[in-house]
Amino acid sequence: MPVSNTVNKKTTTVQKETKAVVLLSGGLDSTTVLFHAMGKGYRCHCLIFDYGQRHRKELQKAKAIARGAGVPFDVVRITMPWKGSALLDRRIKVPQGRAVVADEIPATYVPARNIIFLSFAASCAEAAGARTVFIGANALDYSGYPDCRPEFFKAYQMVLKKGLKASLDGKTIRIAAPLLHKTKAQIIRLGRRLNVPYELTWSCYKGGRRPCGQCDSCLLRAKGFQEAGHADPLLKNR
Amino acid sequence: MPVSNTVNKKTTTVQKETKAVVLLSGGLDSTTVLFHAMGKGYRCHCLIFDYGQRHRKELQKAKAIARGAGVPFDVVRITMPWKGSALLDRRIKVPQGRAVVADEIPATYVPARNIIFLSFAASCAEAAGARTVFIGANALDYSGYPDCRPEFFKAYQMVLKKGLKASLDGKTIRIAAPLLHKTKAQIIRLGRRLNVPYELTWSCYKGGRRPCGQCDSCLLRAKGFQEAGHADPLLKNR
Repeated sequence: MPVSNTVNKKTTTVQKETKAVVLLSGGLDSTTVLFHAMGKGYRCHCLIFDYGQRHRKELQKAKAIARGAGVPFDVVRITMPWKGSALLDRRIKVPQGRAVVADEIPATYVPARNIIFLSFAASCAEAAGARTVFIGANALDYSGYPDCRPEFFKAYQMVLKKGLKASLDGKTIRIAAPLLHKTKAQIIRLGRRLNVPYELTWSCYKGGRRPCGQCDSCLLRAKGFQEAGHADPLLKNR
Repeated sequence: MPVSNTVNKKTTTVQKETKAVVLLSGGLDSTTVLFHAMGKGYRCHCLIFDYGQRHRKELQKAKAIARGAGVPFDVVRITMPWKGSALLDRRIKVPQGRAVVADEIPATYVPARNIIFLSFAASCAEAAGARTVFIGANALDYSGYPDCRPEFFKAYQMVLKKGLKASLDGKTIRIAAPLLHKTKAQIIRLGRRLNVPYELTWSCYKGGRRPCGQCDSCLLRAKGFQEAGHADPLLKNR
């Protein structure tokens, strides 16, 4: 089954009350995806990961977003003692002010992060009888992580087809990555139509009181709002 | 890259001190795989999963086996609040005395368990610079779980190829499942040649003082020792 990457209303027909699992980080993309899925009539259940990330802020934000949207969620706690990322190891510096989408994969890459997150989502979906897993991955305005690319999701879809009991029962669980081929500006425009509360989202890799404005994630967010022609509500009262 | 499923000494050439991650449950299969990998010269690091399983006994056994073998290990703690398995939910009964390898996938199936375990193994391997992940999966004398079948591992191999930074750097991490096509008797014969301490291993799905002798896992183990023509050392002093 191909990975769904469109949000075209004409081609998407979703039965009301269809269950879906949504990976929610508290960032701009995953929050947009949550509201997109809700708008399509999915009955969503969010998974929020407490994986030893650099700061707790995105966890708090994710929970607040799910609560605000009236969507149930689980916080999945995992240990990754091997670290291997600036997001897991405070001794590794978060790159600042680098050219966004450079050729090099930055130090913020977490080994196998989406592979891990999707595996829990698949488990949750199968246990709950959900048929769709939504992920906010994006392969245009992104940090170059290999597990955000279309070919990765295509391969992962096959794993779900071959590795889940649900698939043997004819109920393949589908990975939906509706933002995969959108620019950050397109995502923001979509989100504004869906009334996504961007003031609640958190993109900065650092956990300060305000976004640092210098890390990849801040730079991509700023570029998106600028290109979309909107002000970032998170920065309004700076 | 195809999944390696042979333990043929003639065709396997392993550089001394090559790092590998080994998924260790404390059971018969994964312990055999650990000793197989060590015998091949791999410098092993075990991952032991504390995932809310029905009993703690297999965790204690796994740690004792790793310590006894002088192999470092991490215990990966994860939460799966959705359960959906007799191994995670004490309200679901562990099937007893059923025909082994029946058509039906039993209630002990844990949704996406190997998908999850392999994802952590891949993360650990990438962070540690290991190129091989060993798993004791077996598709002959097994409980029929879909994530133990060759087609699943083939699909997962492609996920690692597409989703890891290591792969982009030309260092694909290989899943090795050397027991995949062996009967339980063949596994035990191999293990005895490798001096696997089967008295330390634990297969029973229940956590009693003695194995129950009636669950799938006990029945498969008993069949294996019987066909191999050996006594199970775990049962010696019953």
